[in-house]
Amino acid sequence: MTKEQALKKLEEYERVSFALGHASGVLSYDGNTVAPKQSAKVRAVTQGELSRMSYELTTAPETEEMILALKEYKNELDPVTARKADELYRDFDRTRRIPKDLFVEYQMLCVESDAVWHEAKLKDDFASFEPYLQKIFDTSKKIALCVEPGKDPYNTQLDMFERGLTTDTCDKFFATLKAGIVPLLQKVIASPYQVDEPLFKNTFPIPVQREFSTFIMGVMGLDPERSVIGETEHPFTTDFSKYDVRITTHYHEDDPLSSMYSVIHEGGHALYELNTGDELAMSILGSGVSMGIHESQSRFFENIIGRSREFCGVILPWLTEHFKDQLSGLTRERLYRAVNASRPSLIRTEADELTYCLHIMVRYELERMMFSGAVNARDLPGEWKRLYKEYLGIDVPSDRQGVLQDSHWSFGAIGYFPSYAIGSAYGAQYLEEMNKSFDVFGSVAAGDLSKVSGWLREHIWKHGSMYDPSDLFKRVCGAFRPEVYVEYLNKKFGEIYRL
Amino acid sequence: MTKEQALKKLEEYERVSFALGHASGVLSYDGNTVAPKQSAKVRAVTQGELSRMSYELTTAPETEEMILALKEYKNELDPVTARKADELYRDFDRTRRIPKDLFVEYQMLCVESDAVWHEAKLKDDFASFEPYLQKIFDTSKKIALCVEPGKDPYNTQLDMFERGLTTDTCDKFFATLKAGIVPLLQKVIASPYQVDEPLFKNTFPIPVQREFSTFIMGVMGLDPERSVIGETEHPFTTDFSKYDVRITTHYHEDDPLSSMYSVIHEGGHALYELNTGDELAMSILGSGVSMGIHESQSRFFENIIGRSREFCGVILPWLTEHFKDQLSGLTRERLYRAVNASRPSLIRTEADELTYCLHIMVRYELERMMFSGAVNARDLPGEWKRLYKEYLGIDVPSDRQGVLQDSHWSFGAIGYFPSYAIGSAYGAQYLEEMNKSFDVFGSVAAGDLSKVSGWLREHIWKHGSMYDPSDLFKRVCGAFRPEVYVEYLNKKFGEIYRL
Repeated sequence: MTKEQALKKLEEYERVSFALGHASGVLSYDGNTVAPKQSAKVRAVTQGELSRMSYELTTAPETEEMILALKEYKNELDPVTARKADELYRDFDRTRRIPKDLFVEYQMLCVESDAVWHEAKLKDDFASFEPYLQKIFDTSKKIALCVEPGKDPYNTQLDMFERGLTTDTCDKFFATLKAGIVPLLQKVIASPYQVDEPLFKNTFPIPVQREFSTFIMGVMGLDPERSVIGETEHPFTTDFSKYDVRITTHYHEDDPLSSMYSVIHEGGHALYELNTGDELAMSILGSGVSMGIHESQSRFFENIIGRSREFCGVILPWLTEHFKDQLSGLTRERLYRAVNASRPSLIRTEADELTYCLHIMVRYELERMMFSGAVNARDLPGEWKRLYKEYLGIDVPSDRQGVLQDSHWSFGAIGYFPSYAIGSAYGAQYLEEMNKSFDVFGSVAAGDLSKVSGWLREHIWKHGSMYDPSDLFKRVCGAFRPEVYVEYLNKKFGEIYRL
Repeated sequence: MTKEQALKKLEEYERVSFALGHASGVLSYDGNTVAPKQSAKVRAVTQGELSRMSYELTTAPETEEMILALKEYKNELDPVTARKADELYRDFDRTRRIPKDLFVEYQMLCVESDAVWHEAKLKDDFASFEPYLQKIFDTSKKIALCVEPGKDPYNTQLDMFERGLTTDTCDKFFATLKAGIVPLLQKVIASPYQVDEPLFKNTFPIPVQREFSTFIMGVMGLDPERSVIGETEHPFTTDFSKYDVRITTHYHEDDPLSSMYSVIHEGGHALYELNTGDELAMSILGSGVSMGIHESQSRFFENIIGRSREFCGVILPWLTEHFKDQLSGLTRERLYRAVNASRPSLIRTEADELTYCLHIMVRYELERMMFSGAVNARDLPGEWKRLYKEYLGIDVPSDRQGVLQDSHWSFGAIGYFPSYAIGSAYGAQYLEEMNKSFDVFGSVAAGDLSKVSGWLREHIWKHGSMYDPSDLFKRVCGAFRPEVYVEYLNKKFGEIYRL
């Protein structure tokens, strides 16, 4: 195959690969937002067929031939095409080790399980979900062992969401966090300077909250011609290209900030995707590189920006104008303290910045125990309760508020959770770097997030999947130093709680 | 190929064919309901790829081999499989005559044009849509000439939506309608017994109208686990299988009945799809057989049932309870007269039962002129106005209320419109037949549509695409007699306007 033939083939490959991903993504988004209940089994059939096509495309002899040709001409390729050749080979080489039937069966299982989880959560009925959950864990372990036979399969899972991440790194990272967070949290709890009252125990009509979402998306600079918001049980972001990014939220009538922080979090994911470089759009490098880097964007916006005193000042006028009756007399300072009230709680997505990573550690431990065979799915509700008591000191009253709260396992995302904690810690180092170029919170105080976005676009977003996540992070911030995050938390919560 | 091999191959074929149709359908539904604006070009790429896959599946040598094998064993096949073999051969034989690139390019053009039409309608800007419209007409004519080289290409178009329908049949049919409707309409207009006042000139909050849709869908017996409603500029129905049917509506704050009749109309389409026989579900025979039969369901529910005195009695309590301030003092009789007020109007979907078919005739004439080359896209706004003056005696003030009002041409549905009129006329014969088995309006008056649905399910819905539309109609009603429809209209409007 000549270089020109290989490049032409690559173009075709990317077009088909894009179309299959796009179709599958929209089916999934539609399934999560508006599809009627009984559509799930039909969707599983279609997703199964699309994944079969995708498998066949990835592992086809013509694909191998194309990749080998590209690698042969590697020195003549531009950096983007060279990266594509490497990534395609990796994908080809790993995928072909999985038997096709197993690959397809697993995709179908994930679609069905997700629908079962949805119902189970609504009804607080873990028993109906348990067999699916067990099968998801069993099958993903089986697949991990196909892909990397000589490796701890949980490491293979971690690598899937943050390339290069291992349990060794996680163990050290979580130990550092735990050593920093636990004593800090104890001091916070013991502090006499508690947040004075629950601010948001009123009724906030959902139509007004929807307008609030539009306002927030505007402040963040999400292009309304390329992004929209939907409503789901569990908020998420999905992108079909930089021209079509979807975020979702969940409204709670008694608390407009719950949805707001979902919108900001998902908005951070969306900004990453909306700002991929044009030359990468719709190509196999056209999405964010990893979930660790992705969560570092969403968590950065949600917490470091969104829970800053300056950002509270930006949203305060909107809140007091549109929720006159409910929020009269609210000040920036009271808002700031309210959104940073730190206390052990049940729900990860609503946890404050300080306790958040403890929720992640619980999930990390449970995933490892499931993969080692130490526990089975039926043990998870009990183990969940035990670990919440141990890490957060609280009792979990129901599975709906416990093991059923997150959607991740139901769609096969095992090994994903650590990305949230890693991403949170990355964010503190972004802040450190960013502050060398400009006054971050000064620009936020002026209601202008474009400097923050400009920095992230230049250093991270525009690169899509051009660099491995660890390399990308190193280019931007040097070595990963979790202690920067611990310092950040100490400083912030030390000030709020006058420690 | 043995019979068993062919049957196994057929199963695979149907699965892939189903998946491609499902994915493409959801992309299109999503595009029409929630997708952001700039997604259109991306969607065109994906729809193009899916249509290429579909083309390749339909025309593959293995597909031909399978079909020929099935035909060889035809005498040993059950009737469903035998019908499948015939339909597959027809599809194979017609599709292979279209060059693949032309086929794919046309699908992509339709996706793009639909998005352009949407914007053009909102902005009342025909000029931006004109080049797309011309290309849609040109390309569909070109394709029609590939499929049936020796035939009038407009007949090929008609056949696509109602197999066997020709301009000869349409000409005679429309002549009969015109001869019946025009003098009747003149008498109606001259009658002193006009509808006394415009009932619905008030404000009807859209959230309440949404509840009304749910109520109407309940009355019609649409299974909420298998069907949902969305909101679009132009109401439509789409089905992905009998387990997932979508209808849409458009709410107008000043008139709750506009949306109600959309819901009833689309609900009729949905009932047809929801009630396909289980043994046909997700197969190539698993959808309604033609647009003529489809519109005969929707128009039957919308008008013959939905605009009956008895149905008005069923919905009256809901309306007066939920719109107390707006509709106090409304009686069944006033409601009945209001929903049957007949007067020439601008918008097809909101036209009364009597003038409706005149709107169709305008479109039929324009399509034929476009196909014969007598006019070009740029002439259409003017021709539209000329024909509305001629057929309905009214002036069209804008393209938004004129040539841009319908979505059909924008997505390539040329030759579709006559199905609405044919379907309306079919309905009068259903009523005639149904009344031989039970008292149709007696059952409606009791708020019970299950007898009507039961009859339609048994005679039409459950058969999916098992029979050609003309054969299906003949099995149910004997020969097609448009005069039955004219009689029905004379009787109904004669009574209302005391002619």
